[in-house]
Amino acid sequence: MADEVVLLSFWLSPFGMRIKIALAEKGIKYEYKEGNLQDKSPLLLKMNPVYKKIPVFIHNGKPICESLVIVQYIDEFWKETSPLLPSDPYLRAQAKFWADFIDKKIFECGRKTCMSKGEENEAAKKELIESLKVLEGELGEKRYFGGEKFGFVDLSLIPFYTWFYSYKTFGKFSMEAECPKLTAWAERCLEKESVSNSLAVQQKVYHFFGQMRKMYGIDQ
Amino acid sequence: MADEVVLLSFWLSPFGMRIKIALAEKGIKYEYKEGNLQDKSPLLLKMNPVYKKIPVFIHNGKPICESLVIVQYIDEFWKETSPLLPSDPYLRAQAKFWADFIDKKIFECGRKTCMSKGEENEAAKKELIESLKVLEGELGEKRYFGGEKFGFVDLSLIPFYTWFYSYKTFGKFSMEAECPKLTAWAERCLEKESVSNSLAVQQKVYHFFGQMRKMYGIDQ
Repeated sequence: MADEVVLLSFWLSPFGMRIKIALAEKGIKYEYKEGNLQDKSPLLLKMNPVYKKIPVFIHNGKPICESLVIVQYIDEFWKETSPLLPSDPYLRAQAKFWADFIDKKIFECGRKTCMSKGEENEAAKKELIESLKVLEGELGEKRYFGGEKFGFVDLSLIPFYTWFYSYKTFGKFSMEAECPKLTAWAERCLEKESVSNSLAVQQKVYHFFGQMRKMYGIDQ
Repeated sequence: MADEVVLLSFWLSPFGMRIKIALAEKGIKYEYKEGNLQDKSPLLLKMNPVYKKIPVFIHNGKPICESLVIVQYIDEFWKETSPLLPSDPYLRAQAKFWADFIDKKIFECGRKTCMSKGEENEAAKKELIESLKVLEGELGEKRYFGGEKFGFVDLSLIPFYTWFYSYKTFGKFSMEAECPKLTAWAERCLEKESVSNSLAVQQKVYHFFGQMRKMYGIDQ
């Protein structure tokens, strides 16, 4: 019997995009169910009772939550095709360290950069740029974070590319000037269909944040 | 040539204790270097330039940071002895999910319960007890989180047992009444030498927080 694979996500979520990319890299067909942040589905509440958040990955009826845990599961279950993590334990540890760094540093100060103004915006932007520069330092002159092959760290970070336009517009800085290597890396990643077919459109993300800013009174 | 294994940590750190337990479970000899939080060593700054924080694990000169990444590395490198993570991908994912939950929920509201008073203390205590009850629900009637064998989730949570006395004293609640199953589980874990030899003494932790509370003006 074929595997039953379902992804519950929301189009804007960088965490959900990671899973789309992983599944595309592995060539796994799946059913995608778009969530509604205002009205959470009974399926979501049943499958992620702890956090009640997307993304949730459901494999043959069994749920897995937390995007990096899901991607590792996908890599371990479908291990024959396109390995995402290196096989060497030390390199695996390094890849997990950087993916964790992205989770700890990029999402929250990126969100604040898009959803604040004044001093709070300045502080968030400063931290975001610093963190992106740390990642740019780790990338160095390499093609991808792991070397010649697209892998776990690339997959963890590239969904945030869809937020870059919002970062630089609401944060009033030039991503290309601050992080030229990271910008070039993102463009290389986008050449892969597994990536380009999985990401949201930057301008649509920007439009979404624009509406949110009005709703929360950040912009008039 | 024998492996050169070094752990940089601080006696109070639950994250460092996780690594001590993992190494004890695997029977790995190592050099322990106690850090000084006020005066960070050049070795720490060199080995963890991103966060400048303990614990750091150094294996044959190569550093690994972040406790859950380190424990997974130890489990993968010394894979023949006492596996900590299950071999089944789904059970591995579940174990990683719960260890991540512990990182996200227990440390910070536990620290706040020990280092605040009034409303902030009440809010932190409430969140801490709720999170511990979620863990108690996951444990259920099992001997350990993974079933009959001590493993990754047990190892991730049990170091916080050394803070339990501080939680309940500064938070003014009964851990035994709120979480009887978790209390019994902790006592079972303590029967293992790998655990009991790796943990700090509860009263010493309490004394440390007492001094900190005076230093920060929380207590007179």
